[in-house]
Amino acid sequence: MKLDSQNLADLAVGAAFLGTGGGGDPYIGRQMVEICLSEGLEVDLVDPDSLRDDDFVIPTAMMGAPTVLVEKVPSGEEAVHSLKRLELRLGRRATHTMPIEVGGINSTIPLVVGARLGLPIVDADGMGRAFPHLEMETFGVYGVPGCPMVVSNEWGDSAVIETTDNRVMEWLSRGVAIRMGGAAYIAEYAMCGADVKRTAVPRTLSLAIRIGRMLRDAKANHQNPFDALLGLLPDTLYHYGRIIFAGKIADMRRETRNGFSLGTARIDGLGRWTGLMEIEIQNENLIARVNGEVRAIVPDLICIMDSETAEPITTENLRYGQRVTVMAVSVPEIMRTPEALAVFGPSCFGLKEPYVKIEELPA
Amino acid sequence: MKLDSQNLADLAVGAAFLGTGGGGDPYIGRQMVEICLSEGLEVDLVDPDSLRDDDFVIPTAMMGAPTVLVEKVPSGEEAVHSLKRLELRLGRRATHTMPIEVGGINSTIPLVVGARLGLPIVDADGMGRAFPHLEMETFGVYGVPGCPMVVSNEWGDSAVIETTDNRVMEWLSRGVAIRMGGAAYIAEYAMCGADVKRTAVPRTLSLAIRIGRMLRDAKANHQNPFDALLGLLPDTLYHYGRIIFAGKIADMRRETRNGFSLGTARIDGLGRWTGLMEIEIQNENLIARVNGEVRAIVPDLICIMDSETAEPITTENLRYGQRVTVMAVSVPEIMRTPEALAVFGPSCFGLKEPYVKIEELPA
Repeated sequence: MKLDSQNLADLAVGAAFLGTGGGGDPYIGRQMVEICLSEGLEVDLVDPDSLRDDDFVIPTAMMGAPTVLVEKVPSGEEAVHSLKRLELRLGRRATHTMPIEVGGINSTIPLVVGARLGLPIVDADGMGRAFPHLEMETFGVYGVPGCPMVVSNEWGDSAVIETTDNRVMEWLSRGVAIRMGGAAYIAEYAMCGADVKRTAVPRTLSLAIRIGRMLRDAKANHQNPFDALLGLLPDTLYHYGRIIFAGKIADMRRETRNGFSLGTARIDGLGRWTGLMEIEIQNENLIARVNGEVRAIVPDLICIMDSETAEPITTENLRYGQRVTVMAVSVPEIMRTPEALAVFGPSCFGLKEPYVKIEELPA
Repeated sequence: MKLDSQNLADLAVGAAFLGTGGGGDPYIGRQMVEICLSEGLEVDLVDPDSLRDDDFVIPTAMMGAPTVLVEKVPSGEEAVHSLKRLELRLGRRATHTMPIEVGGINSTIPLVVGARLGLPIVDADGMGRAFPHLEMETFGVYGVPGCPMVVSNEWGDSAVIETTDNRVMEWLSRGVAIRMGGAAYIAEYAMCGADVKRTAVPRTLSLAIRIGRMLRDAKANHQNPFDALLGLLPDTLYHYGRIIFAGKIADMRRETRNGFSLGTARIDGLGRWTGLMEIEIQNENLIARVNGEVRAIVPDLICIMDSETAEPITTENLRYGQRVTVMAVSVPEIMRTPEALAVFGPSCFGLKEPYVKIEELPA
């Protein structure tokens, strides 16, 4: 499937939704791909089932605090450099690139890389959403090593990280990314086609495009966009969703620390929603509580959307006074196994609450 | 020249002297080489003039805060791993290793690497003393690139840093070393034999051995060790030295910050030495002032020695109440050019005072 400009607009919206607040402003990523299209380059999205077992896929991404990207807009060559550097290290050319996460800008970085290098992009990712740490990948959960990985900056400086522990990879590469100014570009989890089919969350980019299109169509047809979106989910791996709160942002705390965007959003209920919702953020929305009671918890999606337009709002764009609706969505089963929860379940973020599926939490 | 146990003992003393307070406790480095000798391995020191122009030299070292080493003693395999990793990156085997600095533990790390790999060690280094930053190398001053460089830890994790700017190399690799626990092992400034002859400070390891032997002989013969040492210098590239102060350590401030050992030593004058000497430290002794007047300044050596035994004292071993004698020594001319002072002169350490050769400063 060759993506066009309309697909990119829809993808930006859907990726912001699946990014559950994180992954960076999708607008910047979209602009980067638009430039490729305007140069006549092709963005070719392919289904993971079309991969041959011995294809060789090198995922690419941005790493760092999304808040930094607004000030340090990438050219698109940074992640290309990371992929080329990793090819050199491995002595093997990539046949495809792929996202490591579907959230925000990281759904589009591989599109830029694929367009510039003439590589198809696999319609899948390793997070099924966005997560703040590089070890939080279904790739790693199911045995694909993250290293060797490459971290590059806009000046062509790079570091090749080698370790057998994906948490150490995250720790060391984050140190490099911080010293590169808080945002850097990476290639990691190089793997064969068989491993993609075994370990990736499939068809998340095309799902993001469908979500964006659905919200656009609903708006054009004066339908309720939240209803439209909830109607789409049962047909996907993200089969369950519901609105868990709506209100006005009463308080927004935010800081960039240790290379992450940390914060808390507090939302005063409006209409039938009473009480105060608190959402804790580490790049992404991790847990939503109302008056201390859990209403949704990582890895399930917690999406803050504009109550009027249903536009998903990334954490760096949350502002005092916004009217927002919060939707929670179940993640695919590959992300809910004990092995997966050991890598990106609540305890991995220092949360004391156990994981309870959104389907099983009281509304 | 095959080094024996006595050479190592002398080297540890001389390297602590040339290290001008920094480079780590030489005792730990000496023990690492002693283990090699006890296993029957050879430590073969060769003169830089014996190198063929197309020999291939990979320097090895420890990087990090010397204060950390006391708690995290290296096995000796860490730097071997860094060298092997750099060989892989470059697709070329080293014919020799070499120190990047002659101070403290970094005069001995290459001896361990050479012994374990059966490589001769070049009797030269890139600092002619110890410095806190990796760009502060005569190698780099005279055009040898520091990258690609490898940083490894005791677990076999590594990062290959690539940049054309040696200051960026320092900045990024320091970030990795800090996240590796404050001490890591490196291979960098890989170069051919011709470049060693052109850019290195020659014969600094054998000089350190001579200094150690001289101090030992003086003690055995009940001679004044300071006089003996000052008598040796005119015959070397470090041709001038004098005692600039003696007294009792009145106050010692020290902290480990950003991967460095920072501090100030204050010394109350005794005997004919009046007033208060303050020595500023960033891993090494940088500047000595008496009542605010400069008595010696980087890159010239400022060595704090035990007043009784003339044993050089590294910064982490300075203690309140010690009786110490401070000696300043001129560095080789290759380290005093405008190009060299632009990389490791006083302004590179944030000092406002200009460089004045110790020969030209008032006593």
